[in-house]
Amino acid sequence: MVNDLKKRNRQDYGYFLEYRTRWSDNDQYSHMNNSIYYHLFDSIVNTYLIEQCGLIPNESPLIGLVVSSYCQFFAPVGFPEVLDLGLRVNKLGSSSVTYEVGVFSRGEDQPAAVGGYTHVFVGSESRKSTPMATGTREGLSKLLAPSLKPTAKL
Amino acid sequence: MVNDLKKRNRQDYGYFLEYRTRWSDNDQYSHMNNSIYYHLFDSIVNTYLIEQCGLIPNESPLIGLVVSSYCQFFAPVGFPEVLDLGLRVNKLGSSSVTYEVGVFSRGEDQPAAVGGYTHVFVGSESRKSTPMATGTREGLSKLLAPSLKPTAKL
Amino acid sequence: MVNDLKKRNRQDYGYFLEYRTRWSDNDQYSHMNNSIYYHLFDSIVNTYLIEQCGLIPNESPLIGLVVSSYCQFFAPVGFPEVLDLGLRVNKLGSSSVTYEVGVFSRGEDQPAAVGGYTHVFVGSESRKSTPMATGTREGLSKLLAPSLKPTAKL
Amino acid sequence: MVNDLKKRNRQDYGYFLEYRTRWSDNDQYSHMNNSIYYHLFDSIVNTYLIEQCGLIPNESPLIGLVVSSYCQFFAPVGFPEVLDLGLRVNKLGSSSVTYEVGVFSRGEDQPAAVGGYTHVFVGSESRKSTPMATGTREGLSKLLAPSLKPTAKL
Repeated sequence: MVNDLKKRNRQDYGYFLEYRTRWSDNDQYSHMNNSIYYHLFDSIVNTYLIEQCGLIPNESPLIGLVVSSYCQFFAPVGFPEVLDLGLRVNKLGSSSVTYEVGVFSRGEDQPAAVGGYTHVFVGSESRKSTPMATGTREGLSKLLAPSLKPTAKL
Repeated sequence: MVNDLKKRNRQDYGYFLEYRTRWSDNDQYSHMNNSIYYHLFDSIVNTYLIEQCGLIPNESPLIGLVVSSYCQFFAPVGFPEVLDLGLRVNKLGSSSVTYEVGVFSRGEDQPAAVGGYTHVFVGSESRKSTPMATGTREGLSKLLAPSLKPTAKL
Repeated sequence: MVNDLKKRNRQDYGYFLEYRTRWSDNDQYSHMNNSIYYHLFDSIVNTYLIEQCGLIPNESPLIGLVVSSYCQFFAPVGFPEVLDLGLRVNKLGSSSVTYEVGVFSRGEDQPAAVGGYTHVFVGSESRKSTPMATGTREGLSKLLAPSLKPTAKL
Repeated sequence: MVNDLKKRNRQDYGYFLEYRTRWSDNDQYSHMNNSIYYHLFDSIVNTYLIEQCGLIPNESPLIGLVVSSYCQFFAPVGFPEVLDLGLRVNKLGSSSVTYEVGVFSRGEDQPAAVGGYTHVFVGSESRKSTPMATGTREGLSKLLAPSLKPTAKL
């Protein structure tokens, strides 16, 4: 699986944001700390949910709980780099979605890191698994990886 | 694998630290953000390396690069909780080590989350994989999970 | 003013918490980054408000907005140190409060840094300045610096 | 002084960077936490030092220690906003420099917050105050606030 992820390129992702790194992202080994990648995953996922899927975090009856996350690191990045983040959806269920994010240095077509997480949508009060809103599902389905999209049958 | 990790208890870890949560650990859903767990993993691993294995981060000829990390989340935690973190070693090679960390709420024997990462030791200049120091290896071997420790042959 | 703050000692603060530093608190100059002190200020202030003044952040009709903050740095601290934080109240109005926090290394009676901020309590909806709850004010008044407490007149 | 700072506008700053906010910048009151502003101050200051003044953090014989910092908050900002940060220099000595940063929401000419800090350059080994490099001083002098620049005498 590591090999597969390392071979990803920019064309494998349908939505991009550029993220400026911060001074404190670098730890005392002078590269971006491994934990910071997860902050960036959260940021591109929630930006997409808010701007493309109509999510209003504090008004929605549903919230997305992260149930598992992972990251593979291939090359170091660090401040003051500006990073390109690409987002795709690897799995889309009725109440859950699995995101993948590629982290690219400027000018590189191979990712410096690839990771992601699985969101389960739950009632903000009940905390019980609940089907996501239609608008959320439609927005997320646009990012389904090409090979994973259902194809029309003849 | 998720089920296995959820069944961990405090006895499965050989080294513990308590960590006070911070106000900013809670995100706008009012529980500790998923990214913060990785900051805590880094903290217990490096405390152990410094205090029990003789590592001096800025003087050592070797540094530990994180090549992959993951976390499974079972129950929410949040500020102002004080958390108990347990550390164990799941795999110990000549130049790499795989850590596992259990995150426990006070009074709970089942973990709220379990995750970890793999460190590959590299020369701080060369960035090439290099066997870890004897003191590091000895310190880490004390945390090998019981079932993983080599047993003396009769 | 710098000289005054540098002369503070542990007796100048009425409430203490110990805080374990994190690996990512150290920036690439290998000491705790200046921004992290403000995360710690937030943490001791809100712990005190929750545990000693009855504040329940997400249920309270009032929230404390930070209107200004500052810090003076006297000596470096860094991971894996455990820090002692002391809290006092320098000014207590009907709807606002000015906190001061002293950051101490273990075994040191002089602070490594002193800073703080001013909270103005506002309606969580209206965002207009509102007198704080009686319980909040009583809790905070216990931390008023001795020289600032009203004395009974003969 | 608060009134003065609130009246700043974009023309008062000579160098700008845009900074995308992150999901975890918002605390549980759903706006950007006060501590995060200081992370942004560090980021624009160090980007300017690296890109415009020739600083190479881990190779320079000098490092900039923060001796004091402050911030005044005028209006909330929050994720997923993209912020415009403006930098100026308010005081430039031989071994120290005082920066000011204005934080602007998109489309706003009045700052949401204004703050900054004072750097003292010290030898990275000796930690003693040392005159900054000529290139650093020249770069920083370009950001001196107009009214503070020395004017040629007739």
